[in-house]
Amino acid sequence: MRNNFGYTAWIFTLGTELTQGRVVNTNGSYLGRRLTLLGVKVLGIASIIDDIELISKYLTVVLDEKPKFIVTTGGLGPTYDDRTLEAVAKALNRKLVLNSEALEMVKRRYEERGMPLTPERIKMAYLPEGGVPIPNPIGTAPGCWIEHRESVVISLPGVPREMEAMWESWVEPRLKRLLPLIYIAEAVAKVVGVPESSLAPQLNRIAHEYEKVYLKSHPLGEELGKPVINIYVMASGGDSSSASKLAQEVLNKVIAYAQSLGGSVAVLELKVS
Amino acid sequence: MRNNFGYTAWIFTLGTELTQGRVVNTNGSYLGRRLTLLGVKVLGIASIIDDIELISKYLTVVLDEKPKFIVTTGGLGPTYDDRTLEAVAKALNRKLVLNSEALEMVKRRYEERGMPLTPERIKMAYLPEGGVPIPNPIGTAPGCWIEHRESVVISLPGVPREMEAMWESWVEPRLKRLLPLIYIAEAVAKVVGVPESSLAPQLNRIAHEYEKVYLKSHPLGEELGKPVINIYVMASGGDSSSASKLAQEVLNKVIAYAQSLGGSVAVLELKVS
Repeated sequence: MRNNFGYTAWIFTLGTELTQGRVVNTNGSYLGRRLTLLGVKVLGIASIIDDIELISKYLTVVLDEKPKFIVTTGGLGPTYDDRTLEAVAKALNRKLVLNSEALEMVKRRYEERGMPLTPERIKMAYLPEGGVPIPNPIGTAPGCWIEHRESVVISLPGVPREMEAMWESWVEPRLKRLLPLIYIAEAVAKVVGVPESSLAPQLNRIAHEYEKVYLKSHPLGEELGKPVINIYVMASGGDSSSASKLAQEVLNKVIAYAQSLGGSVAVLELKVS
Repeated sequence: MRNNFGYTAWIFTLGTELTQGRVVNTNGSYLGRRLTLLGVKVLGIASIIDDIELISKYLTVVLDEKPKFIVTTGGLGPTYDDRTLEAVAKALNRKLVLNSEALEMVKRRYEERGMPLTPERIKMAYLPEGGVPIPNPIGTAPGCWIEHRESVVISLPGVPREMEAMWESWVEPRLKRLLPLIYIAEAVAKVVGVPESSLAPQLNRIAHEYEKVYLKSHPLGEELGKPVINIYVMASGGDSSSASKLAQEVLNKVIAYAQSLGGSVAVLELKVS
């Protein structure tokens, strides 16, 4: 795939529960999908244990690539191993400071429950210097938005309901204002009866001919002894019809080729977001 | 968490379908879980787009940490963007060479179906120099096992059924011979009625007292207006009863503390693997 998007991103889904395989990384796929549909090319998704040195090391390596966005999830809570913002501060070479707006958010949450502020609760209001707190409509820990040179670092909690609510109500509206309007057309064709290795040379040629279209084959195993491959096509454009037309054009070439090799083809999906 | 394991690992789950959020990373959680149960500390799981430069860059950064194992999934197939072993070769500074044993495996697969070898099929038999092919009992692309200085790089296909079959039949038996026998005791307690921020100071103290035990709280939201937290405890030992005893000891402290704060506690799980 050639890069048809100007903006890139990395996602850091933090937490030892992920590296230990106790939790499947649905935050990563949620954010990967949302960013892709905004026209952002996600270069990678990294889960790292709750270790401030290791997290800040990889944040630093990734920041050197100057992605437009780095989104982190997890590690914003009140416990001893919730140290994501410390790692972000370290990677950005900024101090971690008590943010009065964030403190107000945290205070309000506990006051609603008749609970006092404690050091563990106040901890959640410390943000890297220059950070803007992101309100958490469901839980207690605010998120954080920091602009740093070419990049924006966005930190969200790890609880999926909280993360998604904050993404949809606060983060995504801001990203939409920053990013050009883009339409993403996607198509999936299911090919039965042709091995992936037979499709490969022509898919390769089509991928190189249409450098702005993303094309990928996914072998799904066999049905009744015949190989089954899903072919995914993604095209983008400034309007819905140009994106859709481009995806359709590539899809038609793939279908014609698979049929010429004796495959039976079904279009499973063709949509524009 | 302090490191209670001598061996560390990184997992690279490769493929743009993961970074685009079209596929949830179950390979990452499968491998994270299997390695953890072998007593290996998984430091991170990285999904990266199908880009040989980017993959080899991060493999190189991770190799510098001298993890005992790096496991990659995906990118072994016959298509133009299946280039994981090229990236591994580059990171290890080795040539990619036609491996005669791997070629025999691939040839046999296609002969069974009465199909000839083509460049795309032969491609799957190229391994980094010194690599040992891992038989694929389900699909066509062999995996690869390479020992490199302090590390072993293990590459497996991205199709979960194939990856899991190769892990269980070939990789894990080898790892078990390399690694000391270890038992992992795990416990989960559900605490209702105490906010995570109230539990935090004591969990912090327990975590520091038992440096070889992994302890983590996971807020799950609220039930009938009361906060619900799962507390996970993991302990390891050279025999089943010492691991189990240690986990139980920590669990009891957590339970006593949560109850002293007015929480109701249920033990959801207590097992040794």
